[in-house]
Amino acid sequence: MVSPQGSLPGSAEHRLQELGIELTPAPTPFGAYVESVQTGNLLYLSGMLPAVGHEPKFAGRLGKEFDVEQGREAVRIAALNVLSAARKHLGSLDKVTKVVKLAVYLTTEGDFFAHPKVADSASELLRDVFGPDKLPVRIVLGVASLPLGMPVELEVLLEVEV
Amino acid sequence: MVSPQGSLPGSAEHRLQELGIELTPAPTPFGAYVESVQTGNLLYLSGMLPAVGHEPKFAGRLGKEFDVEQGREAVRIAALNVLSAARKHLGSLDKVTKVVKLAVYLTTEGDFFAHPKVADSASELLRDVFGPDKLPVRIVLGVASLPLGMPVELEVLLEVEV
Amino acid sequence: MVSPQGSLPGSAEHRLQELGIELTPAPTPFGAYVESVQTGNLLYLSGMLPAVGHEPKFAGRLGKEFDVEQGREAVRIAALNVLSAARKHLGSLDKVTKVVKLAVYLTTEGDFFAHPKVADSASELLRDVFGPDKLPVRIVLGVASLPLGMPVELEVLLEVEV
Repeated sequence: MVSPQGSLPGSAEHRLQELGIELTPAPTPFGAYVESVQTGNLLYLSGMLPAVGHEPKFAGRLGKEFDVEQGREAVRIAALNVLSAARKHLGSLDKVTKVVKLAVYLTTEGDFFAHPKVADSASELLRDVFGPDKLPVRIVLGVASLPLGMPVELEVLLEVEV
Repeated sequence: MVSPQGSLPGSAEHRLQELGIELTPAPTPFGAYVESVQTGNLLYLSGMLPAVGHEPKFAGRLGKEFDVEQGREAVRIAALNVLSAARKHLGSLDKVTKVVKLAVYLTTEGDFFAHPKVADSASELLRDVFGPDKLPVRIVLGVASLPLGMPVELEVLLEVEV
Repeated sequence: MVSPQGSLPGSAEHRLQELGIELTPAPTPFGAYVESVQTGNLLYLSGMLPAVGHEPKFAGRLGKEFDVEQGREAVRIAALNVLSAARKHLGSLDKVTKVVKLAVYLTTEGDFFAHPKVADSASELLRDVFGPDKLPVRIVLGVASLPLGMPVELEVLLEVEV
């Protein structure tokens, strides 16, 4: 059986459909850079923010303006931008062979230490779309600030078909 | 001459023995990710913390709760976790052909600027184990916070035999 | 036509000449690491600072001691160190086939959110030297502190001829 978009059951594009996720348009740069660069079978993506277009959907810090659940929601929006940017580059997310690395940067204030739970919001979406056999390594940092005051930024490295 | 573990003199496993270092069990993930992903001959590792298992051995910040020497000790524990995770993936540290990159993330408070001296604790261990011909590039950042309040996190990229 | 240094018009070395840029000597490590490591056709560089030799040219934070224009100047000095280190490794910047990734780390205080404008100072120099067809992906973080109190640090990954 082939899905309406031609994706096989179990493929990333098929899972995305089953999850009922429609991706917003891929983000566009805030400056003199691009959203994706491929070298060999490695696809590097720019830092992804909880924005749609250039409009921040969240501005503030974890442990101050936002709690864990709001942080998870912001991370999810950024993770959807990861998928959007990757699909734009590749044509189809089915060309992703491994999610190599996920770095999660969180703007934190004071004694906020629930980084893993917030970061899991991205890890879980990537797992649900690419499958549990494609889990990445993970780096999580609490930072002082992010572009335009946003609370989260994601950096993702993918291995892709060439 | 072959060492008790079958490693040649001058090899990483042999040096580890000579240094009298016994590695603790490799860390296990705090969430939906894995500790190592290999793509081609590049081995990516997750951010390594000064924890044994899921138990933090240090919680606090450099320049506040911890001084340079304590920071160096925390970095060393995280670096031992790097070795543990790499050995678990590879079977033997002798398969490491280059230490490509070392990123050292330190939670700092106020005017703490002795980053290089603290970071050197990881660099020196890696040099002692892998040899001075395999020194990595290095990135050092002072961050606002790290998972579970730990003061240091290490990110290491290795080139390995395939 | 061949330039005085044997570089073809449109090449990176030729553009550098046209821009009237003379690079200062490549930076040397602050500890037990090296400034460049190549694996396959990927050239990793250490974090580059606004220093000449080991002497910081800027110490302080954006949003406190420094404004956007001063931040851009500090970033430019760090970006020139990127070029210096890459040339030292490669012999010629003409061997750079892609600028894969640029990470810009800025020490920020309070509500400083003009990260993209400051980061663009590095992006624009790299674009002017390597050409608009070699723009990298970009990660920008506001951090708590950087080595020796410097306000910016750059991490660059290059794809190079082998």
